[in-house]
Amino acid sequence: MFITLEGGDSVGKTTQAALLEDWLMGEGREVVRTREPGGTPLGVEVRRILLHGGDEIGAVDPRAEALLYAADRAQHIAQVVRPALARGAVVVQDRYIDSSLAYQGAGRVLDVDEVRRISEWAAQGLWPDVTVLFDLAPEVAATRRASREDDRLEAEQQEFHEAVRSAYRDLAAASPGRFLIVDASGTPEEIHAIVRARVAERIAAG
Amino acid sequence: MFITLEGGDSVGKTTQAALLEDWLMGEGREVVRTREPGGTPLGVEVRRILLHGGDEIGAVDPRAEALLYAADRAQHIAQVVRPALARGAVVVQDRYIDSSLAYQGAGRVLDVDEVRRISEWAAQGLWPDVTVLFDLAPEVAATRRASREDDRLEAEQQEFHEAVRSAYRDLAAASPGRFLIVDASGTPEEIHAIVRARVAERIAAG
Repeated sequence: MFITLEGGDSVGKTTQAALLEDWLMGEGREVVRTREPGGTPLGVEVRRILLHGGDEIGAVDPRAEALLYAADRAQHIAQVVRPALARGAVVVQDRYIDSSLAYQGAGRVLDVDEVRRISEWAAQGLWPDVTVLFDLAPEVAATRRASREDDRLEAEQQEFHEAVRSAYRDLAAASPGRFLIVDASGTPEEIHAIVRARVAERIAAG
Repeated sequence: MFITLEGGDSVGKTTQAALLEDWLMGEGREVVRTREPGGTPLGVEVRRILLHGGDEIGAVDPRAEALLYAADRAQHIAQVVRPALARGAVVVQDRYIDSSLAYQGAGRVLDVDEVRRISEWAAQGLWPDVTVLFDLAPEVAATRRASREDDRLEAEQQEFHEAVRSAYRDLAAASPGRFLIVDASGTPEEIHAIVRARVAERIAAG
């Protein structure tokens, strides 16, 4: 089973991934917890360029950015995700194609269909069984990350975060069978209970 | 005017780029000499991953590789080539889309049409005015690079170099108006005279 966690920055994906992993391991499942970008050694290099490029790299062209994310994805799917799924593990992944569509497509200037096409090519057409969307008002998310170090994405404007949230909701509405939308303003335990119930249901369904 | 230099490794592209630049500057033209991958600070990082990734990165998935080249291209076209062409400079570039098609498409396992589509998207549809293909038997090229440090591409098999040469010739045959095929077994001065004649003709044609 392939589970992806999506949403804006600082909505609690990392905490939820850890809780989900713990629960699944307690159920006797092998769990591979991973993320994009940065889930492979190549991806770590790409992530460094994307999020912390700094002055020596300058403004990253939107197409270059989308292609770097896609390169990270291709490597990650081939090297980590497919082998894990093939041996029966549950993959719990922080960000996937929906992130590209929400951030690069809706939030930026690129054609969403082209970004989707490139992502699908990179991923060899692999879509998740369950995608959990952690939905949270950007102003709430902003207070959560006030104490954390900024990176390039987190320094973007409030308006951009609103556009990302809206794009995510549209993606979820278009694929209701795959998406679980969770109100991320609850406590970590409340949110985990909702996520766990959906995943348990999916496991029971085979 | 946008001029690209293509061909296998060690066919003399760098020497010819320098000679072409010198001649064009003597003619009073602004010349931007550049290359892919690595023509921008972002591209230098990507090139480092591609050619010298080494043990910590491991085998690079073919799709990831193609997407990294495309990311480098998008940044390079947006940041270097288009601004140079817009102000009337001549761009002399070592490797471009044809390299991706010859190396990634024909030589590897990927679908050439998809690689072309992604490259064109990255480059916003920009094709060169003149592409010089330096054609040389791989065994001759191999003796030229015997004394140079190996990188990942140069360590590939002889058979692969043959496939690349053949792919380049097919590309040239498909676009005879854009390509100039030069026998790269001649002296640098002989080859330069041929290249110069073609470029002068193109400049005269406006």
